Amino acid sequence: MREIIECVPNFSTSDPKVVEAILNEIRRVENAYILDYTFDDYYNRLVVSFVGNRRSVLDAALNAARKAVELIDMTKHKGQHPRIGAVDVVPFIPIKGVTMQDCVEIAKKFGETLARELNVPVYLYAEAATKPERRDLDWIRKGEYEKLGEMIVQPDRKPDFGPAEPHPTAGATITGARKLMAGFNVNLGTSDLKIAKKIAKALHSKKGGLAQVKAMAAYIPEKNMTQIGMSIADYEKTPLYRVFELLKIEAQRYNVPIVSSEFCGMTPLKALIDTARYYLKIENLTEDRVIEIAIQKAAEEAQKPGAT
Amino acid sequence: MREIIECVPNFSTSDPKVVEAILNEIRRVENAYILDYTFDDYYNRLVVSFVGNRRSVLDAALNAARKAVELIDMTKHKGQHPRIGAVDVVPFIPIKGVTMQDCVEIAKKFGETLARELNVPVYLYAEAATKPERRDLDWIRKGEYEKLGEMIVQPDRKPDFGPAEPHPTAGATITGARKLMAGFNVNLGTSDLKIAKKIAKALHSKKGGLAQVKAMAAYIPEKNMTQIGMSIADYEKTPLYRVFELLKIEAQRYNVPIVSSEFCGMTPLKALIDTARYYLKIENLTEDRVIEIAIQKAAEEAQKPGAT
Repeated sequence: MREIIECVPNFSTSDPKVVEAILNEIRRVENAYILDYTFDDYYNRLVVSFVGNRRSVLDAALNAARKAVELIDMTKHKGQHPRIGAVDVVPFIPIKGVTMQDCVEIAKKFGETLARELNVPVYLYAEAATKPERRDLDWIRKGEYEKLGEMIVQPDRKPDFGPAEPHPTAGATITGARKLMAGFNVNLGTSDLKIAKKIAKALHSKKGGLAQVKAMAAYIPEKNMTQIGMSIADYEKTPLYRVFELLKIEAQRYNVPIVSSEFCGMTPLKALIDTARYYLKIENLTEDRVIEIAIQKAAEEAQKPGAT
Repeated sequence: MREIIECVPNFSTSDPKVVEAILNEIRRVENAYILDYTFDDYYNRLVVSFVGNRRSVLDAALNAARKAVELIDMTKHKGQHPRIGAVDVVPFIPIKGVTMQDCVEIAKKFGETLARELNVPVYLYAEAATKPERRDLDWIRKGEYEKLGEMIVQPDRKPDFGPAEPHPTAGATITGARKLMAGFNVNLGTSDLKIAKKIAKALHSKKGGLAQVKAMAAYIPEKNMTQIGMSIADYEKTPLYRVFELLKIEAQRYNVPIVSSEFCGMTPLKALIDTARYYLKIENLTEDRVIEIAIQKAAEEAQKPGAT
């Protein structure tokens, strides 16, 4: 594949039947490949990672969004993760052979089509934002689905596409283009959500924590634990080990142990390399020195026309 | 590339001209690709990693070995790393689409050809060994180049190919097939080789250390430091973090800090994953969840005949 775009749509559902129906809409598109998907009851949210070229990634995202609008009823939705609509947020990420601007164009086509076909109001965010404040997902999502009716009529909150009123069952949708980011959740050995919230606050960039980090606390009933859910917008600037070690220090303050952690979505290799470099004090580790990647590059060289 | 074999030949030289001449012999072979090479004065040793198919990997290994026999004079060689010949050891490693037995066959062809053409005695080791004790590189290399003349005439040390006498300038060669292993060197904040040797001993499998680990101590003049040079034969059984943490504990005993570390040769992805799993307590991390690998697999699926 010469051209690779990743799309990581977030849908407001954890109903296995709805999840399967949405995934099938992506699977049936030629040259679109699902890399991963996760969904949880406590977030009541489905996160899918898939890749494709310009055309297939847009087609698959639209198919999946149409199905989600059809099947998800936001008037009945509850979940710990902030959300504004059935098709909550749909970022397009340049991976290979495409620019950020290409992904901005794809996001605009996606938003324009969704609004025109289904009357869902659409906001552009991140690199596709039309105003500085709209770069921020949280600004757009303020008040969530429940207050969308009041918010959307404010002049500065007019959607980029579609009507200035919520879709009756699907709310609104946010789409845009951004860099690859890392989603990382840490499970804490406490069921006390108050403590988890304090720890999340200590990590969050806007509350005095680490730049590039958004952190939220959630309670996980089936484990009787709390979790810090984080996204690291630029994990090259703010590497994972720094986030983890600071989280450990803040948790120690409340005598709360870290039980386990998990990537939410795919793991970027660079995050693993930075982790090994830090903990093992490695000096000479780069992507090119990872055997699987080096072999892949050699294979690509071999396939170029004129290569011997 | 449907079929991938890695070859990691070790040559007894650190002369940049000789290094370049050997590398060129690999570069000129169609479908052979150098992934990495390192050489150091204090080890006086060149380690090359390259990949190819059955045919190209054998051709490139033979070309490189012929050049090394031509240019390296063991009668003048000094170095801290044990060695028995100019072309010291040449392992073949199955990576993809080939079995260990395929690599044993390649090693035998390599050894037979080298002995026949250049009169270099050749020993088979690891998975290609003809007797149990010959699985062990150190057993074969006992006495090193300097005592090779005495050792090689002993009945139980008869070479697998070639004459029972050392090549006058190239000594002997060891070849075989083995699993991918990790080479890992740790630099210590002490110039005291006695302490470094104690730490190496504590790590070495045969001396009561960790299974799968070989460790040796060396002094690095340009840094005025010592180094623990290690190979981990099966880094899935004995992961890198365990080796590193134990080394740290043994070094603390002598109040010696760990300054830095480095992979010697290529880094296996699995070693990075295990490292992140341990230090960040990650539960759900596998190769398939690393985005670069997942995309590679999707691309391979897309290239299969009949794939949509």
